[in-house]
Amino acid sequence: MTTELRIAVLGVGMMGADHVARITSTITGARVAVVNDYVSEKAHELAATIPGCRVVEDPLDAIADPEVDAVVLATPGPTHEKQLLACLEHGKPVMCEKPLTTDVATSLAVVEAEAALGKKLIQVGFMRRFDTEYDQLKALIDSGELGRPLVVHCAHRNPAVPPHFDSAMIVRDSLVHEVDVTRFLLDEEITSVQIISPSANPSAPQGLRDPQIAIFTTESGRHVDAEVFVTTGVAYEVRTEVVAEHGSAMIGLDVGLVRKSAPGTWGGTITPGFVQRFGQAYDTEIQRWVDAVKAGAETGNYVDGPGAWDGYAAAAVCEAGAKSLESGAPVAVEMVQRSSIAGA
Amino acid sequence: MTTELRIAVLGVGMMGADHVARITSTITGARVAVVNDYVSEKAHELAATIPGCRVVEDPLDAIADPEVDAVVLATPGPTHEKQLLACLEHGKPVMCEKPLTTDVATSLAVVEAEAALGKKLIQVGFMRRFDTEYDQLKALIDSGELGRPLVVHCAHRNPAVPPHFDSAMIVRDSLVHEVDVTRFLLDEEITSVQIISPSANPSAPQGLRDPQIAIFTTESGRHVDAEVFVTTGVAYEVRTEVVAEHGSAMIGLDVGLVRKSAPGTWGGTITPGFVQRFGQAYDTEIQRWVDAVKAGAETGNYVDGPGAWDGYAAAAVCEAGAKSLESGAPVAVEMVQRSSIAGA
Amino acid sequence: MTTELRIAVLGVGMMGADHVARITSTITGARVAVVNDYVSEKAHELAATIPGCRVVEDPLDAIADPEVDAVVLATPGPTHEKQLLACLEHGKPVMCEKPLTTDVATSLAVVEAEAALGKKLIQVGFMRRFDTEYDQLKALIDSGELGRPLVVHCAHRNPAVPPHFDSAMIVRDSLVHEVDVTRFLLDEEITSVQIISPSANPSAPQGLRDPQIAIFTTESGRHVDAEVFVTTGVAYEVRTEVVAEHGSAMIGLDVGLVRKSAPGTWGGTITPGFVQRFGQAYDTEIQRWVDAVKAGAETGNYVDGPGAWDGYAAAAVCEAGAKSLESGAPVAVEMVQRSSIAGA
Amino acid sequence: MTTELRIAVLGVGMMGADHVARITSTITGARVAVVNDYVSEKAHELAATIPGCRVVEDPLDAIADPEVDAVVLATPGPTHEKQLLACLEHGKPVMCEKPLTTDVATSLAVVEAEAALGKKLIQVGFMRRFDTEYDQLKALIDSGELGRPLVVHCAHRNPAVPPHFDSAMIVRDSLVHEVDVTRFLLDEEITSVQIISPSANPSAPQGLRDPQIAIFTTESGRHVDAEVFVTTGVAYEVRTEVVAEHGSAMIGLDVGLVRKSAPGTWGGTITPGFVQRFGQAYDTEIQRWVDAVKAGAETGNYVDGPGAWDGYAAAAVCEAGAKSLESGAPVAVEMVQRSSIAGA
Repeated sequence: MTTELRIAVLGVGMMGADHVARITSTITGARVAVVNDYVSEKAHELAATIPGCRVVEDPLDAIADPEVDAVVLATPGPTHEKQLLACLEHGKPVMCEKPLTTDVATSLAVVEAEAALGKKLIQVGFMRRFDTEYDQLKALIDSGELGRPLVVHCAHRNPAVPPHFDSAMIVRDSLVHEVDVTRFLLDEEITSVQIISPSANPSAPQGLRDPQIAIFTTESGRHVDAEVFVTTGVAYEVRTEVVAEHGSAMIGLDVGLVRKSAPGTWGGTITPGFVQRFGQAYDTEIQRWVDAVKAGAETGNYVDGPGAWDGYAAAAVCEAGAKSLESGAPVAVEMVQRSSIAGA
Repeated sequence: MTTELRIAVLGVGMMGADHVARITSTITGARVAVVNDYVSEKAHELAATIPGCRVVEDPLDAIADPEVDAVVLATPGPTHEKQLLACLEHGKPVMCEKPLTTDVATSLAVVEAEAALGKKLIQVGFMRRFDTEYDQLKALIDSGELGRPLVVHCAHRNPAVPPHFDSAMIVRDSLVHEVDVTRFLLDEEITSVQIISPSANPSAPQGLRDPQIAIFTTESGRHVDAEVFVTTGVAYEVRTEVVAEHGSAMIGLDVGLVRKSAPGTWGGTITPGFVQRFGQAYDTEIQRWVDAVKAGAETGNYVDGPGAWDGYAAAAVCEAGAKSLESGAPVAVEMVQRSSIAGA
Repeated sequence: MTTELRIAVLGVGMMGADHVARITSTITGARVAVVNDYVSEKAHELAATIPGCRVVEDPLDAIADPEVDAVVLATPGPTHEKQLLACLEHGKPVMCEKPLTTDVATSLAVVEAEAALGKKLIQVGFMRRFDTEYDQLKALIDSGELGRPLVVHCAHRNPAVPPHFDSAMIVRDSLVHEVDVTRFLLDEEITSVQIISPSANPSAPQGLRDPQIAIFTTESGRHVDAEVFVTTGVAYEVRTEVVAEHGSAMIGLDVGLVRKSAPGTWGGTITPGFVQRFGQAYDTEIQRWVDAVKAGAETGNYVDGPGAWDGYAAAAVCEAGAKSLESGAPVAVEMVQRSSIAGA
Repeated sequence: MTTELRIAVLGVGMMGADHVARITSTITGARVAVVNDYVSEKAHELAATIPGCRVVEDPLDAIADPEVDAVVLATPGPTHEKQLLACLEHGKPVMCEKPLTTDVATSLAVVEAEAALGKKLIQVGFMRRFDTEYDQLKALIDSGELGRPLVVHCAHRNPAVPPHFDSAMIVRDSLVHEVDVTRFLLDEEITSVQIISPSANPSAPQGLRDPQIAIFTTESGRHVDAEVFVTTGVAYEVRTEVVAEHGSAMIGLDVGLVRKSAPGTWGGTITPGFVQRFGQAYDTEIQRWVDAVKAGAETGNYVDGPGAWDGYAAAAVCEAGAKSLESGAPVAVEMVQRSSIAGA
């Protein structure tokens, strides 16, 4: 498919609206063709800001729409089952924000329906699998260098949660990420769960069991513990440590992946070259330049970054540097005054 | 401009080809419409892989082409002057890889020509200004919290350089980034340069003055020193420390921006929320899903990430978790065997 | 007491011999007056190297000895009860390596005997309470800045253990330190313990349950978990994190105490002055100089550190520096050749 | 010499008084026998607090005193020459705070006088050579693992200086430490010095050239730069980075020695065992216990640390732990109430 993927985003609350912005401004090869929301005005307001985007009032109609190639599901969990089955029915690939559905039986029904179809159409929004640090940790485990993973320690901390957040949501909405991280990193299923509710944070809302400690046992008997604490007042902290047969590795310490290995060293990896170190910078440079060029017709300024004067100044300094390289002595930089060139 | 920006990439060596891939796969709102290279076959090979991309044999023709909206210049430095002037003549925005031109006089001529035009069309590829860490450092300086910057220490280390790299290239190709970083961070011009060549690295090629120490003085008398060392054998390391009136801050220590402030603390900032922490993960998640969906017609697999089974497994674990939340005791996870569902 | 404390060290295996060396070479105000060991030759060999030290063959005689002011107990645990009671009987202060005694009933008997005496004579060798990092962590908790501690995570890792180490010793000899750390940091008793034995490290000796996860509940319902893993193959790692109402703090990350606080910062503390930064250096400097002076009569060299030449060289460089301070230009250092002064 | 070294401390200002306290409370095998100061009352006050310590009014008499074995010189620099020569004359080992003398000619005279004597009696107080981190850095260089050191970067920052501190004192009193560090780490002399005075810190006292940048060249042509900045307002920061042929290493980042090596790793070393990790804790434990025992006669409390109750509590928790090790289930800890034992 060389043309742009036409996506319907169903549900444009915080998460859905964020996906709409992402697809429009960041993702290449796709565009938001349809939006839909339970609150119709919200959908209309958003559609008006996206070229070529229209509102379809019924989510099932949006899924069935022949001008829609794929679906992003950011609707409330209870509607997921019906909408996912509709996607399967119409053969539409769907990226479904967690949860898949709100209970085990309907989740299984969706798995079975997709399996019966013989095509994998459903992706679930466990985005940590796409995080650079989790990727590095998974790659390190898979490399075998650490040997068999034995224990995993997780911490998941939010500064605050909305007023309606209750103890069970800590399990279903927060801990669920640690569930997927465990399954992703260890490549096996969880067989037993224990939730410990210690004496609660006095700063948490009355009745909220926070923090909670979850203990998972996996098929092969590995131990995972996860602290979930959603009223820390500090910031958003996510940390995972894998303790393995020949060493351990931790992410989420604000310092990248830190590894401990025999014979007694700790540390990380330095980027091997400028492509790895500045890849993000190059992407941002070009994206912002493209955006500036598109906006430039109105302002006469087609640049969003260093301009010709900056190139000239660099040349003048390097010229002085090249002279000093010969003599070793300080060399004055010769430059015209910027103000001497009107418009520079 | 709501349609895609049509870009001509001139020069498709390592840097140019990298920009072609970037614009094609990562950048939204633009596409590579034209490629050109001194080695015509290289341009043709590359164009064949990009939908809607053609080769224009003469770079000046490519610049003049009415179906080209903007230009990326990745040609050898000596050709820049003529090509930049052509871009100005045709009113085409141009993103020019460093150097602007290869000497001071021609750089000034380009600045003057653009100034005379009254439109800013030229951007220079000093990509560090778009790096997250440099951005944070600049923002911290501009916030005024550190007071007046007094001294800047830079280190720029490469594991190795190609055989043709000579002592002057260390100044013109490597140190030039520290020149721009200095001007970017301090917002003033460099007035004097000294290059010190200490006893050379015995592991460096015979005759290469490596490492070199550059000392810059700025208009207001600030001191900048920069170690440039291109045969370290280690990795790619770029470090900048700003020492200011009320504290200091360093980037490039593999741990993000680290700041020292009164009354005697060191440290960094934690991401305030999941949007900041996992923004990259969300972008990657959706981009890879879009790519997978586009490729899916052939394979029957439209997902590149966690699927319906992963959603089901998470539901089953959370269900057990919700039960354990009540009892505090371990609860077995109830799941069907994956192998019992053909195709799951 | 202005004279030196005369200490009897009972048991001179690894730990006891280490204490003998410590008291002799490092501790001021005390000396080892008596040593004793089940293996008499070992005691005699050691005593011969310590000026004024003699062997007493029976540990109870050593305790009763009128020329002994205090006792260090490094004998096997099963002998502790009788020896501690003897210390109490003779009013001798005793520093007892862990365990106090080998079971709960005898430990209680010792507590009761000391209480009946009305004098606190017994100290137990939980040395972590004297570690700089644990001290900093305790001080931070006690300052109240973090609010109420809610959860504590501990990790205790050894690269390897001797062949006789069994699963219960992981509890009694390793975990016991986390028991004391918990009581020290939280200032309350532990009311419940759970030991989880996950799938064992394949590299551990057959039958050893390693790693183990301990879960403590305290009087006020706080949760503590501790991973004890004694066959990591890596190094000696001890880590403790306290998660509290208004922030968290961790020690044992090879980077000192790292603290997370609102509104989203992480970091540590810089030494406020040279006394704190170089206090250890000053102590070592003077101790090694004292030792060198004492040994100097034989060698004619009474220094163990920088000598007069180093002072001269520093003067010469600073002289050149003071001249350069005026001119800003490089100034050659003028020094005589060291070889021109015989004996310098 | 098995008896205590009798030391005369000349000059009991801040540094001298600190050494008196150190020798009295921390150093084993030595005591302060004599103190002397230009301000006689200060000496008398201090002597009154030290058992067996007396005042000698003339520093030369103190040096000559037959009951003095060695001298610590903490007098003003201008008196050093005469006092050092007196130490040499009487064959007294002397630990001389920097500077050796206040100018190059007299420093040389002292070197020559000691050389003529044929005995090394003079040590200079460059205490950084005894700092653990500098020791580790020196050991790493000497191991040859990093190859030839090529460049050294130093930073030396004070939060503030006394009002009389002038620009030359930054060279003679602060930079002098970097002079010695350079000579210590590189094992060669400095041949040239340049002091650069950039635009001064607006927060520094009027007229103080602060910060200053020093550049040293060594005999073999190596480059050292040192930022000295004494009015940072932050804290006491000392940092040294050695950039060598096969890697680099830095100390002073608040995280111990951090090393960068091929093929692209950064990190440090974990303590190999509990002796290294907790050596300081053991020393402190025993020293504080010795001090507490000596003070105990008056209070009836001979412990300064965990007591018998702590040993009992640990036994009770470990007993529960050993039971849980068998069952895997939580086990309640059985303990008597502490309040049930009067005096416990």
